[in-house]
Amino acid sequence: MMDDAAIRAALAAIDVVMVETTHAGNLGAAARAMKNMGLSQLVLVNPQASIDDEAIARASRADDILHQARIVPSLTEALANASLVVGTSARSRHIPWPLLSPRELGARVASALPAGNRIALVFGRESNGLSNDELQLCHLHVHIPTDADYSSLNVAQAIQLLCYEMRLAVSGEELTSHQAWGVEWDYPLATHEQLDGMLRHLEQTLVDIDFLDPNTPKQLMTRLRRLYQRAAPDQMEINMLRGMLAQINKRLPPRSE
Amino acid sequence: MMDDAAIRAALAAIDVVMVETTHAGNLGAAARAMKNMGLSQLVLVNPQASIDDEAIARASRADDILHQARIVPSLTEALANASLVVGTSARSRHIPWPLLSPRELGARVASALPAGNRIALVFGRESNGLSNDELQLCHLHVHIPTDADYSSLNVAQAIQLLCYEMRLAVSGEELTSHQAWGVEWDYPLATHEQLDGMLRHLEQTLVDIDFLDPNTPKQLMTRLRRLYQRAAPDQMEINMLRGMLAQINKRLPPRSE
Repeated sequence: MMDDAAIRAALAAIDVVMVETTHAGNLGAAARAMKNMGLSQLVLVNPQASIDDEAIARASRADDILHQARIVPSLTEALANASLVVGTSARSRHIPWPLLSPRELGARVASALPAGNRIALVFGRESNGLSNDELQLCHLHVHIPTDADYSSLNVAQAIQLLCYEMRLAVSGEELTSHQAWGVEWDYPLATHEQLDGMLRHLEQTLVDIDFLDPNTPKQLMTRLRRLYQRAAPDQMEINMLRGMLAQINKRLPPRSE
Repeated sequence: MMDDAAIRAALAAIDVVMVETTHAGNLGAAARAMKNMGLSQLVLVNPQASIDDEAIARASRADDILHQARIVPSLTEALANASLVVGTSARSRHIPWPLLSPRELGARVASALPAGNRIALVFGRESNGLSNDELQLCHLHVHIPTDADYSSLNVAQAIQLLCYEMRLAVSGEELTSHQAWGVEWDYPLATHEQLDGMLRHLEQTLVDIDFLDPNTPKQLMTRLRRLYQRAAPDQMEINMLRGMLAQINKRLPPRSE
């Protein structure tokens, strides 16, 4: 059993990312929910509300988290250093994507943290959640079980529930089935930026070999992104893939225009 | 797996009892949290706030629960028909009392419901929770794990967490270990043979572009196999990868031996 300081230190690797939040009260309630569970890292993407009196009041004594929040203009920027990006989603989507329950996510995060990986939990707008494009930036999605006829959770409540499951999983206060690898994983997971870089390189190569028509891309890159994100590549694997792409580029004949 | 109507019917045996709540917003947020999880029975003991515009606004579309709430003057009256009374407590008390975690409580409640027992979950005042006398009316206590230095949960957040655990326990949603994708996965997973075929094709291509030396292969193919196996590709994804490899083969210049 870990003590509170150790739990807090472990949970500091988790960013709670709120996208375009419109209600100041939700910012405050989110900060309070995080601090109750020992989380501290809040990231606000293009917030539509400010940290005003209502936010401070709802935060109770957790306003330190509000004042230290990182404010960024885009989700991509928020995710740059994250190795595991988790989107919260109530909606059904067209392309199947890895979907976990909050408890399964706890087990997954608890097994990813000891290797020094950074995790981002991404929460959408009060009105309509995360867009499909935003959901596709996520390695996996988490769905909080709700009544199907009344499924829209308040964003601060959703943050409360996930932070609770993160605390339970990390602290070992409840038994969780850890994902085991037999031995410790040997390389750190790739960051979101590293994975994106590989995917951009792959896309350009596919255009160069006339496999991908940039004017009618269809779902090819979306499906490739999903495939590689599902595997959660480590940095060594990303280097291998980029090495392969570089070698293909080198061996291609010059284009006959 | 129960459907939502059956879950709602089972959870209707659980009363959420709020004692002397002072903030109307918390009444609304509690109603919303309950309805999200399929609970419906709210009991207000001597409420210090009224069901006003703020309560309705925070309830979102769960104001039916507010309007149907039973309002009683005393906790004793609220508990009259309950067979299992559970008090929420953050404070240490002088007399040891049965204390469960929210998850343990879920299991306990799930086993008590089929016998037709009525359950009361009792939540205290925003300022100072439940008194010792009130806690002693409870058969058992539940403690939501929190950071010891910041342990005071907002009452609606505490209700959200317990309602979530009640839903999970009653629905059995966590007992079924499933890998879910949000919607049905659209293509069958690749067979071992199909994955092997793609990897052999990849290996030959890597030899052709002089990326892999067949005489000193090191761990390259082992690591690539592990990467793709981890993602468990479907047949469409394997076809995409093989299509990419075929196109690379086609675009390569003939080897100069």
